[in-house]
Amino acid sequence: MKNIAILGFGVVGCGVAEVIDMNSKAIAARLGEEVRVKKILDIREFPDSPFAALVTTKKEEVFEDPEISIVVETIGGARIAYEYTKMALSAGKTVVTSNKELVSTHGVELLSIAREHNCKYIFEASVGGGIPIIRPLKHCLAANKIERIVGIVNGTTNYILTQMAESGADFATALSEAQSKGYAEANPSADIDGIDAQRKISILSTIALDGAYVDPSSLFTLGISDITTVDMEYAREMNASIKLLAVFENKEDGAFAYVAPHLVSKSHPLACANGVFNAIMVTGNALGDAMFYGQGAGKLATASAVVGDVMEAVEMPTKDAQASKWFESEEPVLLPIEKHSVSVLLRLPESVSDDTVSEAFPEISCQPCVYEAEGEKAVILGKNGDMNEAQLAIGLESIPEILGMIRIFGE
Amino acid sequence: MKNIAILGFGVVGCGVAEVIDMNSKAIAARLGEEVRVKKILDIREFPDSPFAALVTTKKEEVFEDPEISIVVETIGGARIAYEYTKMALSAGKTVVTSNKELVSTHGVELLSIAREHNCKYIFEASVGGGIPIIRPLKHCLAANKIERIVGIVNGTTNYILTQMAESGADFATALSEAQSKGYAEANPSADIDGIDAQRKISILSTIALDGAYVDPSSLFTLGISDITTVDMEYAREMNASIKLLAVFENKEDGAFAYVAPHLVSKSHPLACANGVFNAIMVTGNALGDAMFYGQGAGKLATASAVVGDVMEAVEMPTKDAQASKWFESEEPVLLPIEKHSVSVLLRLPESVSDDTVSEAFPEISCQPCVYEAEGEKAVILGKNGDMNEAQLAIGLESIPEILGMIRIFGE
Repeated sequence: MKNIAILGFGVVGCGVAEVIDMNSKAIAARLGEEVRVKKILDIREFPDSPFAALVTTKKEEVFEDPEISIVVETIGGARIAYEYTKMALSAGKTVVTSNKELVSTHGVELLSIAREHNCKYIFEASVGGGIPIIRPLKHCLAANKIERIVGIVNGTTNYILTQMAESGADFATALSEAQSKGYAEANPSADIDGIDAQRKISILSTIALDGAYVDPSSLFTLGISDITTVDMEYAREMNASIKLLAVFENKEDGAFAYVAPHLVSKSHPLACANGVFNAIMVTGNALGDAMFYGQGAGKLATASAVVGDVMEAVEMPTKDAQASKWFESEEPVLLPIEKHSVSVLLRLPESVSDDTVSEAFPEISCQPCVYEAEGEKAVILGKNGDMNEAQLAIGLESIPEILGMIRIFGE
Repeated sequence: MKNIAILGFGVVGCGVAEVIDMNSKAIAARLGEEVRVKKILDIREFPDSPFAALVTTKKEEVFEDPEISIVVETIGGARIAYEYTKMALSAGKTVVTSNKELVSTHGVELLSIAREHNCKYIFEASVGGGIPIIRPLKHCLAANKIERIVGIVNGTTNYILTQMAESGADFATALSEAQSKGYAEANPSADIDGIDAQRKISILSTIALDGAYVDPSSLFTLGISDITTVDMEYAREMNASIKLLAVFENKEDGAFAYVAPHLVSKSHPLACANGVFNAIMVTGNALGDAMFYGQGAGKLATASAVVGDVMEAVEMPTKDAQASKWFESEEPVLLPIEKHSVSVLLRLPESVSDDTVSEAFPEISCQPCVYEAEGEKAVILGKNGDMNEAQLAIGLESIPEILGMIRIFGE
């Protein structure tokens, strides 16, 4: 019998208790021993929950109980969750979490505390919800140099963009629909401003770089709140979808990581991820492309990844190998985003002359878009790989009339 | 320094040597020790290979060398590979393979020999080539009851079907093109008759059933050689693709596994796997749907999965846990396919009357297809889930005029 505790009885925490309950026989058969939720720590009470008897407000009932060897942290955020995670790891208890904010902010320190105390800090569910992505990255792709990761990693923004594309709704309408369905929070900033995606690509990038820590706050990040119904018109006519992409690239000169909305051709497999679904494409130097697709959030899906980690902790309780060492590199880990090459769709008023554009973007490839909305001129810049973000930024400054601009994802 | 041997220096065997060479530094950094190919066993000589000096024809140089603790079997087939695998495992050497024929035929015995001798028999690369699928199934989805697996697991047939759909070629032309490109073998039977897919779904089904062995030869299996250009016309008009699907389903009454071509709606994520690409969708009772997509074959892609397994064997050399026990169940593991519900597109000469159809398929839902080729009548049977394979077989017997029939994949 393996006893665990759940910290924070919100949606995911409750899902963890449910999955363990629902699949208890199968889990016991696979592990050769039962997994039991012994305590649930929360400041609230849950009189109507079937797990009410397990809920406690006293943290010593978790941290000082030697029977509890694994702790699930589903509090979220990087304050109390941070304190409790340190407390658990310092007591030699393995911590399993879906908390991307905490992992991406304090992962280096928390993994180091885990190593010191011969336990583990594991977080498969922090990226991609229920989709297995972190373990495949670490283990299955171990024999590859990871050259690129491109992910649709935020279900809320993908739902909003899908709604805008399918129903013609504008951003505000699609957002409030997402809120009413529970897909977006009352304060949606972390999702729509790309912060959630930023955290997730920081975690994936750090793993792809063998633990060299990529600080999320250092990443170039654009959200989706500027996407308009006219942008969606262009996407449709270009046979593309607009997707918020979280990108990591590791080339010969160095690595880049960033988050921004992109036009993605509908013939690309990533475009098949619609609604709240996530999709993450990984390119290895031996493997080529592999894509992982599924529900990136949701109570039971995320909980199933957490419980998978709990089972790993039961089977292999000792510390992780090399793969789980994160460290602050003394050298910069990423190249400045200004050096990254970029191709964009640029929308301008019809009145702007071709000369104005070519003066703003000298020696940069410029071709007309297959579609132009009424009264607009639309061009595609940098398709030949001859523009970088610095050149784009400079050019944009000299054309104040710009109506819209979206990056184009190149396969 | 970890010494390994490669048995069989064909495409994948050679790829394994290349991947280890190409990524040697990264592999050593991740494992904390180097991996070296010490011997390559083959009856042929390879004077022009950079690995020529390692090639030997003497099997004792592999099996009797105590320095070699891991053996990669890339011979293929179930004869010499079977003998050599038993020999290696009996000597306590872990065997890593991409050989689906051997795993699906003798997996129960080989895993048992491995357990006896405290080593491992691992085969991530046997399904999906480089795509991580077996490890995610075993570990990440450990907390789920696997309710369904639907895979496009054979790149050769998917290439042929994609060519037929895109270029309008007939089956024979598309097959010979696949042969000229090296995607199909001179004797293509194992691919086009569905045998390769049958072996792969047997492996995945056995894992999903926690080791209860599913004998591939017992599975209902249809290949693609009867698919015509007219079938492709119907697919296009129905906004669908024709895909050879390998299916496992586990419902309340029991499990089914089979292989057959299906019409798959283009809006389904599986339809995005074109050409030689594979895609495998897994449905867990907590997870919901997750899909794994990538190159299902190819020298370096498959080799990268093999090398990933080699690295697992280095990191965790002891025997596997519960998850890797396969056993012959005394009870039948699968329900008879006759009980499986099925929906089909049925193509008939225009001259066949509606009454003939409704007499052949009494009390079964029947609706006209959105498209009918010239001189044809086309209906969709069993869309309401009211037909099983037994009823389909009986009905077909009484209509000898049938022009074509394809199963329809229901989401």
